Amino acid sequence: MKDTIGLCLIGAGRAGMIHGRNFASRVPHAKMVAVSDTVEESARSAAGELGIDTWYTDYRQALENPAVDAVIVVTPTKFHHDIVIEAAGAGKHILCEKPMAMTREECQGMIDAVKKNKVKLQIGFMRRFDANFRRAKEIVDSGEIGAVVSVKSLTRGPSTPQEWMYDIHKSNGPLAEVNSHDIDTLRWFTGSEAASLYAMAGNYRCEAAREQYPDFYDTVLMNVRMKNGMMGNIDGAQGVQYGYDARVDILGTHGSLHIGGLMGGTTLTYTKDHRMSADVIRSWTNLFYEAYVNEDISFIGAIREDREPEVCGLDGMMAVDIVRAGNESIQQGQIIYLS
Amino acid sequence: MKDTIGLCLIGAGRAGMIHGRNFASRVPHAKMVAVSDTVEESARSAAGELGIDTWYTDYRQALENPAVDAVIVVTPTKFHHDIVIEAAGAGKHILCEKPMAMTREECQGMIDAVKKNKVKLQIGFMRRFDANFRRAKEIVDSGEIGAVVSVKSLTRGPSTPQEWMYDIHKSNGPLAEVNSHDIDTLRWFTGSEAASLYAMAGNYRCEAAREQYPDFYDTVLMNVRMKNGMMGNIDGAQGVQYGYDARVDILGTHGSLHIGGLMGGTTLTYTKDHRMSADVIRSWTNLFYEAYVNEDISFIGAIREDREPEVCGLDGMMAVDIVRAGNESIQQGQIIYLS
Amino acid sequence: MKDTIGLCLIGAGRAGMIHGRNFASRVPHAKMVAVSDTVEESARSAAGELGIDTWYTDYRQALENPAVDAVIVVTPTKFHHDIVIEAAGAGKHILCEKPMAMTREECQGMIDAVKKNKVKLQIGFMRRFDANFRRAKEIVDSGEIGAVVSVKSLTRGPSTPQEWMYDIHKSNGPLAEVNSHDIDTLRWFTGSEAASLYAMAGNYRCEAAREQYPDFYDTVLMNVRMKNGMMGNIDGAQGVQYGYDARVDILGTHGSLHIGGLMGGTTLTYTKDHRMSADVIRSWTNLFYEAYVNEDISFIGAIREDREPEVCGLDGMMAVDIVRAGNESIQQGQIIYLS
Amino acid sequence: MKDTIGLCLIGAGRAGMIHGRNFASRVPHAKMVAVSDTVEESARSAAGELGIDTWYTDYRQALENPAVDAVIVVTPTKFHHDIVIEAAGAGKHILCEKPMAMTREECQGMIDAVKKNKVKLQIGFMRRFDANFRRAKEIVDSGEIGAVVSVKSLTRGPSTPQEWMYDIHKSNGPLAEVNSHDIDTLRWFTGSEAASLYAMAGNYRCEAAREQYPDFYDTVLMNVRMKNGMMGNIDGAQGVQYGYDARVDILGTHGSLHIGGLMGGTTLTYTKDHRMSADVIRSWTNLFYEAYVNEDISFIGAIREDREPEVCGLDGMMAVDIVRAGNESIQQGQIIYLS
Repeated sequence: MKDTIGLCLIGAGRAGMIHGRNFASRVPHAKMVAVSDTVEESARSAAGELGIDTWYTDYRQALENPAVDAVIVVTPTKFHHDIVIEAAGAGKHILCEKPMAMTREECQGMIDAVKKNKVKLQIGFMRRFDANFRRAKEIVDSGEIGAVVSVKSLTRGPSTPQEWMYDIHKSNGPLAEVNSHDIDTLRWFTGSEAASLYAMAGNYRCEAAREQYPDFYDTVLMNVRMKNGMMGNIDGAQGVQYGYDARVDILGTHGSLHIGGLMGGTTLTYTKDHRMSADVIRSWTNLFYEAYVNEDISFIGAIREDREPEVCGLDGMMAVDIVRAGNESIQQGQIIYLS
Repeated sequence: MKDTIGLCLIGAGRAGMIHGRNFASRVPHAKMVAVSDTVEESARSAAGELGIDTWYTDYRQALENPAVDAVIVVTPTKFHHDIVIEAAGAGKHILCEKPMAMTREECQGMIDAVKKNKVKLQIGFMRRFDANFRRAKEIVDSGEIGAVVSVKSLTRGPSTPQEWMYDIHKSNGPLAEVNSHDIDTLRWFTGSEAASLYAMAGNYRCEAAREQYPDFYDTVLMNVRMKNGMMGNIDGAQGVQYGYDARVDILGTHGSLHIGGLMGGTTLTYTKDHRMSADVIRSWTNLFYEAYVNEDISFIGAIREDREPEVCGLDGMMAVDIVRAGNESIQQGQIIYLS
Repeated sequence: MKDTIGLCLIGAGRAGMIHGRNFASRVPHAKMVAVSDTVEESARSAAGELGIDTWYTDYRQALENPAVDAVIVVTPTKFHHDIVIEAAGAGKHILCEKPMAMTREECQGMIDAVKKNKVKLQIGFMRRFDANFRRAKEIVDSGEIGAVVSVKSLTRGPSTPQEWMYDIHKSNGPLAEVNSHDIDTLRWFTGSEAASLYAMAGNYRCEAAREQYPDFYDTVLMNVRMKNGMMGNIDGAQGVQYGYDARVDILGTHGSLHIGGLMGGTTLTYTKDHRMSADVIRSWTNLFYEAYVNEDISFIGAIREDREPEVCGLDGMMAVDIVRAGNESIQQGQIIYLS
Repeated sequence: MKDTIGLCLIGAGRAGMIHGRNFASRVPHAKMVAVSDTVEESARSAAGELGIDTWYTDYRQALENPAVDAVIVVTPTKFHHDIVIEAAGAGKHILCEKPMAMTREECQGMIDAVKKNKVKLQIGFMRRFDANFRRAKEIVDSGEIGAVVSVKSLTRGPSTPQEWMYDIHKSNGPLAEVNSHDIDTLRWFTGSEAASLYAMAGNYRCEAAREQYPDFYDTVLMNVRMKNGMMGNIDGAQGVQYGYDARVDILGTHGSLHIGGLMGGTTLTYTKDHRMSADVIRSWTNLFYEAYVNEDISFIGAIREDREPEVCGLDGMMAVDIVRAGNESIQQGQIIYLS
């Protein structure tokens, strides 16, 4: 077993640097050795913050570096496919952020390349490593609420979608960028794949997108029937302003379970207008901070112990499938049946 | 303005007697004068409990009693139509429990009879009179969370459905019996009518019904598009055992609002297994006790002040419409478009 | 066993009418037969509201009325002693509001009169009949949190104290008027009597009282050692404005228990300032509404079944003892040892 | 301004290593250069974990190391005085864990030495750096709840006290080891010093200590009058088993504020016994994890920016004063007046 895994971060933006900092200081047996970003200044400054000397503007250079055992891919989604294929070809293990890729075909290609080159591929559904989600899984698996009947997962983000997301034919839209996590939660807790789904959506807040991108939606409600008969519901919204809202409601045959809550602290204030008030969670970076650390620790474990990653390429591909079926349902106003 | 309204309760079961007791003691300007129930013993004992002497086994006798100004109809749904038509013909005001009737046509007949006879008809959607729902309406109307985007209403009941509900072609099923309330909440908070809907359902708990009633469902998830573009979601379940779970989640363009909670008291216990535990609400009779009182007070107000009831025949009819469209969607596996 | 107990309310103010309305409509086997109030208009209008014809301005007339089996004493505290002694002499059962009287000696006289005349005397510590308090007692008695170590009870009221309370030598102050309930809770959950106590207090809000009544306090913190070694703490405050705050914290040898909460409803609002807010309970009349009903039902039960009331004269007397010791501690700045 | 501060950890136990890990990886401009522990194996293994080569079994060696700019003192309290005096003499800045020392005299000596040698001394009241406490301070300072009337701080720990704590004449007892934090909270939020106090205590759980150490207490309730007239209450308990319970309740003239809560996650389970249950926080290391990071960042800031530490020697000394007065009150059964 290799003692220390050398890592290169590919894509040094906000999300990328969460991983970068984790691997640099909070993940045992991990060592950041390089950073790559197409923007030179980003690459240089990220390397500086992580206390390393090696940075690239072309990830291919990283793939040639023998000190790099694994790469963390946190670029825009459309680049995932090529980077992962090449990284696998270079014998590097891969932690790839969600969404895994743009299409099912891309995902299949990535899975094949990884298999052929015998490297590990882990997909970034970090909620599976969150303490609250793990506790919930443990309780559900214990049978305490009976057999699972339905899983409802909600993620609403405070920020207005960025313009690159408006063309959902190119971006796969909010279902991909945000609700991928909810889709994975649904699959994880039902232990099944989607059989059919129906999504309703609308653009309620993004005035700027309305004319040019009539297909764009900032809010979506999607019902999913799983192959094993269980039911799912996904609630997604962008630009809600009030906070970062991520909650799951699982109904069993004789019990129920909730994950998540909006409280951003424990300080409650009671005032003379007869109101109680409290702060709300503002960002996923606060809520899932520890989940990222656990995810990164698990990735290193999969490499060192030569075991299947806890979230694998199939998980990434099936989520992409559901995202695209959801978008199709929205655009056609039809129920979509998955194969 | 008549000072005191004389009332006859038609149907002296558990739900009926909630109204009976309210009108007997907690509603100003109301006076219970008679009770009618097809089961003689029920009628007699209800009269006894309410401290009155007059009871009938045939409601038609009540309609002939000049001391009766108004009737409260709490019989099985299939009798609502005939009783309301006859009561209206006899010049009696009517508080009719939900669901209003079995079909849209029945509802229309009732509305016509009421109009023709110039009597009041109020439908029993008592949640509109619940303090928490009213507060929520006030906040939504104030614009504090922006324009409404989506309304999600959930009602899950602890008890296993009774056999008469199994044949949903005769009973209209759980959507009618329980989720009528959620449907009304959706209409109330969106201020709009359903344009289309899609429901998924299943029988996850009622083994006894499975063979003979394959259409029966004890759990349902339904997405609704309103005519004004807002979205709705209804989550219904029967026999969940853990408690009576009634919650609403309203998303606005820049805020959000929750109604409801499962806590059945304020006593929290912390034990040496490092767990906190608390009692859960067991029944709608606890949760909405005061809502029924307010509903009954409002009904008396509508009669005395000669104003339109706060929940009228149209509200009852539109809910029946959505119930039936929901059942149709479940049976056909199709999106249903409402006219 | 007498089927119906005839009652006369003595003192028809806000608190009195809570009992009046309960006995008139929500307490089985009870019948309001008369009301007495020194203010003629109050007596007359209370009788009207309760639907009875008999009202007095002198309670002695009620004591002569053979239809009156029991009286509810809700006058200012200083009149309790004489009324109770006379009522007992007239053979009437008595529900006497807290505080029981002004001094231990008065209480002893009342207890003696009641005993001699073989009537029931129940003291108005209605929290013992509140569902949350009862549930807590059940859990504590079950041993789930181990043996009781300490009981902390807090009551803070929104309203500014009225002027008659300023002279604590005459009124016994906030400890008597408000924190009597907390004192009773402490005795109930420890099952013991106070051995010693130390109270700190101050006038933080009542500017008007400061000069003329330097002994007046609107806030008090009192530590109590019980005879069985358990510890108690009482937190009282008047004029806090933010709501009606009543909470209990019980520490056991291996667990803990909380009663109470400030939430005045279940409606939570999330707004774009990243805040969650909710309404707070404004008044004891909301919080303990059902507790009063249960208390009144229990009183009727004690009479009909000829059993000891659940809260008896001794409970009233011991609370008065602690109130006076607390006031003495505040004034002298000393630890007070109770006999 | 020196760019990087070199640190030596003195005392590599559980609490010490929290600081060690923070300075090694999460505090900018900090660099762990050495570890000292009297147990050779502890020193060696701590150095290994922190990725450094230098370790000592005698802290005096660290004081001679010019790469060490500052020391973190996390030894048993009785050694704090000598170490701090010597460290100051060697020109090292000092972060000293609470309690600062055993007596007021020791504290004064430490303060004098620090002043004379112009080094920084910060005392480890890390709650002042906790996000919830900081938010509370901000709200209180904003005047939103009016002027502060009382501050109640509670800390109850799950673990049974260790034997060395039994002789409170040597250990200063639970008030020192645990409730020092509550004492500091009281001083921080009232902005004043204690004028007098009265404490009640008892040994309710530690059978083993009862005979030989009759003065030992595992539970304490203490009332404190501050010099500015505000009131305080401290609730401390050891060995409570159910969880780590740390809460603050601040009453203002027209509002109130709570800090803390026992919830150890957001996963709630509803089961067929009609109960809701959830995990409770088990340890201060979870609850205040981030507070330690912030504390350590602030210490480095104080050194680099040459400013007074946010928690200084006086804060440590005044807390020791109150601890000792509290113990005196418990032993003598008297009110203690502080000078």
